[in-house]
Amino acid sequence: MARLITIEDPDDPRLGDYRALRDVELRKHLETEHGLFLAEGEKVVRRAVEGGYEPRSFLMAPRWLDGLSDVLGRSDAPCFVVSEALAEQVTGFHVHRGALASLCRRPLPAVAEVLQGARTVLVLEDIVDHTNVGAVLRSAAALDVDAVLLSPRCADPLYRRAVKVAMGAVFALPWTRLPDWYDALPDLSAQGFTTVAMTLTPDAEPLEQAVAGLDRVALVLGGEGHGLSPRWQASADRRAIIPMRPGIDSLNVAAAAAVACYALQRR
Amino acid sequence: MARLITIEDPDDPRLGDYRALRDVELRKHLETEHGLFLAEGEKVVRRAVEGGYEPRSFLMAPRWLDGLSDVLGRSDAPCFVVSEALAEQVTGFHVHRGALASLCRRPLPAVAEVLQGARTVLVLEDIVDHTNVGAVLRSAAALDVDAVLLSPRCADPLYRRAVKVAMGAVFALPWTRLPDWYDALPDLSAQGFTTVAMTLTPDAEPLEQAVAGLDRVALVLGGEGHGLSPRWQASADRRAIIPMRPGIDSLNVAAAAAVACYALQRR
Repeated sequence: MARLITIEDPDDPRLGDYRALRDVELRKHLETEHGLFLAEGEKVVRRAVEGGYEPRSFLMAPRWLDGLSDVLGRSDAPCFVVSEALAEQVTGFHVHRGALASLCRRPLPAVAEVLQGARTVLVLEDIVDHTNVGAVLRSAAALDVDAVLLSPRCADPLYRRAVKVAMGAVFALPWTRLPDWYDALPDLSAQGFTTVAMTLTPDAEPLEQAVAGLDRVALVLGGEGHGLSPRWQASADRRAIIPMRPGIDSLNVAAAAAVACYALQRR
Repeated sequence: MARLITIEDPDDPRLGDYRALRDVELRKHLETEHGLFLAEGEKVVRRAVEGGYEPRSFLMAPRWLDGLSDVLGRSDAPCFVVSEALAEQVTGFHVHRGALASLCRRPLPAVAEVLQGARTVLVLEDIVDHTNVGAVLRSAAALDVDAVLLSPRCADPLYRRAVKVAMGAVFALPWTRLPDWYDALPDLSAQGFTTVAMTLTPDAEPLEQAVAGLDRVALVLGGEGHGLSPRWQASADRRAIIPMRPGIDSLNVAAAAAVACYALQRR
């Protein structure tokens, strides 16, 4: 059972994990250096713990204790009970979903481990927006993707905003970061995946046709600004496009990911 | 040619259209009451003007004048030239995309006008988040939807955030607001559309199957919290679901919209 500890001093050092949650740069350093991440809201906190992540602590106003009593009952971490005003003062925003938890990061699994048994894989190159990373993970989990690989420069899937948008999918879906950018796609091909790059290049074939009948597929999506790098476009086995109305330049990457996962489901 | 007017006083009343852009509640009132909306960024400003919206004024730092010289050349509206610091002071945020324009709203077209010749229609019920409305419009424009109808409580597609996320799709795609909520779907059926409601109810059939072979379709999507109202679920001709991995409760509405538009393209 989590120890309930009432805190009334906003400067209490035990609240350190929860400070200034809207300061993205500060949080990026603090969280990775201390090996922690934040989950927000009853549903996401529960999914993080059920996903096997070890809580460092919880923080919530008294009225959220009941809803999470099962989770708190199974944890030895402290639960800091604070007023809503104090929660807002410490975190820097109104915590309207109530509960927060700080959890321990785990070493990322090896690529081989994540790919074990996978038939449908998403590979993300340099998607730098946490909302987009979270949205892609949520769609991937819902639409039967088995694993997600992220390029070294993709945004952190365990950053609070990504976790929230993903609705906890990041805890259930196997994912890891690629150690090597340059040969990432040829490496996947060597492991038996057909790599299909989503591009706008003239030699791209319609997505549906590009994935028809394939067994193991790694579908590759590029970042928000300029899409896939030339290296990844050129080193993929196939190039595919979502057919669009003439004159429209592109889809948002999260929309493209949802469509791509749906098309992969039906291949 | 737009008159270039250099302004150095942040309290200059001519900057009224551009004040406090991050104050959503204030802006909602100000913009609808004064019949204006804001476009942000060179590309979106250009698309708004090309879409036939009449500029009230432009506001930008000197370095953005060149990029928009064609647009300014064809307008009689004043262009307020300000420092980036003053732009930030007035608007309340760093205008990193440079140019802003304030444009006149137009009376919304009648539903019949928007549906004229349309074969594929999206109907949105109570999507209250501006980002989601913008994202849905962007996907709809890209994936060959002919028209979009919004329920009375949907967020405003001309709100700055929606316009930005839609990448200007809101200026090209025919849309309007439904005057009546209760009978909106039966009214569409009476006009020859098969209304297909996206739901999670047990009688929902897979989306692909629900739309197969249909000519005129109105695909119906519900809001962020609880999806479609019971009334709209019950009054649609068909109920459809995007097949999802067991245990996953739903997709984000923007992802569901992208998938739905893609499926409609291939019916």
